[in-house]
Amino acid sequence: MGTVQFVLLADDPSTFITRVVPFIDIELAGIPGDRHYGLLRPADSRQKIYKRGTPIANRRQISIVSEEECALIAEKMNIPEVRPEWLGANMLVRGIDQLTELPAGTRLLFPDGTGLICEGENLPCLHPGKVIEQVYEQDGLRKKFVPAARKKRGIVCSVEREGVIHTGDTIEVIRLS
Amino acid sequence: MGTVQFVLLADDPSTFITRVVPFIDIELAGIPGDRHYGLLRPADSRQKIYKRGTPIANRRQISIVSEEECALIAEKMNIPEVRPEWLGANMLVRGIDQLTELPAGTRLLFPDGTGLICEGENLPCLHPGKVIEQVYEQDGLRKKFVPAARKKRGIVCSVEREGVIHTGDTIEVIRLS
Repeated sequence: MGTVQFVLLADDPSTFITRVVPFIDIELAGIPGDRHYGLLRPADSRQKIYKRGTPIANRRQISIVSEEECALIAEKMNIPEVRPEWLGANMLVRGIDQLTELPAGTRLLFPDGTGLICEGENLPCLHPGKVIEQVYEQDGLRKKFVPAARKKRGIVCSVEREGVIHTGDTIEVIRLS
Repeated sequence: MGTVQFVLLADDPSTFITRVVPFIDIELAGIPGDRHYGLLRPADSRQKIYKRGTPIANRRQISIVSEEECALIAEKMNIPEVRPEWLGANMLVRGIDQLTELPAGTRLLFPDGTGLICEGENLPCLHPGKVIEQVYEQDGLRKKFVPAARKKRGIVCSVEREGVIHTGDTIEVIRLS
């Protein structure tokens, strides 16, 4: 059983950085107003089996990171903290062991019945490293992010059951075979 | 590399039995006109984590069986053949080894760029057994279906990239991670 520490939204079109909000609406297409909202999204470098830009099903609607794994990234980078905002996360959770290694297909259930499907590890990219380097004003810090964040950068999820997720909600983790 | 032997459609609302058609349109919500078409569907006995009837994301839009596995089911049931129509399948393929055991997340790619995501084994239920018993007019035959079809009854897929699938198309099988 985990807990939702914060829910966050990327509703400023100029950046992927998220901001803390009291709750997030969960629709089949994701979180309304968030930059990852949509039933379809253009294929990118992660989906090399499709031509770049091809509209494909959006299975990266919601990203989740854990307090425990963010602390481990910070430790490896030798900095005081790594905040979920800087990773563009929509949710910070506590109490889910090795969140990033949850198998694809794992279900996350919330108190009002909202259900998310884990689509697997959110592979670390370069952007959060740049944000962290700016925050700490420490040249070269950006390069430490990707190696430090491997298997700790959280997961991406798609929506199975619509609803609302609040700060403080419990999370039931259901691993399917 | 596999081949599409037949594509089929369940467009008679009175039955799950499918009929052979020359091609099927693939939309994000499935095959238009098919009984499993839809972005949402009501949770059933397979999704015990939701109250029965709750609208959830439809990840069982397209069902695929293989010629080789249908032959094995027929052999085990001691009957001449098991046709994809009787299983309510939307596609009969040839040349994909142990189709039913493809891991969830495997991608199936078709010549025009259409992409399906394997959502896992289609667990055998009682209905096809009844159809087979009627076809062969052999009392009690229905009971043989579920044990004979375990791990041979094919897979269910959701849609990643829209397009059209024709009889005779090749299928590229891409296993992720």
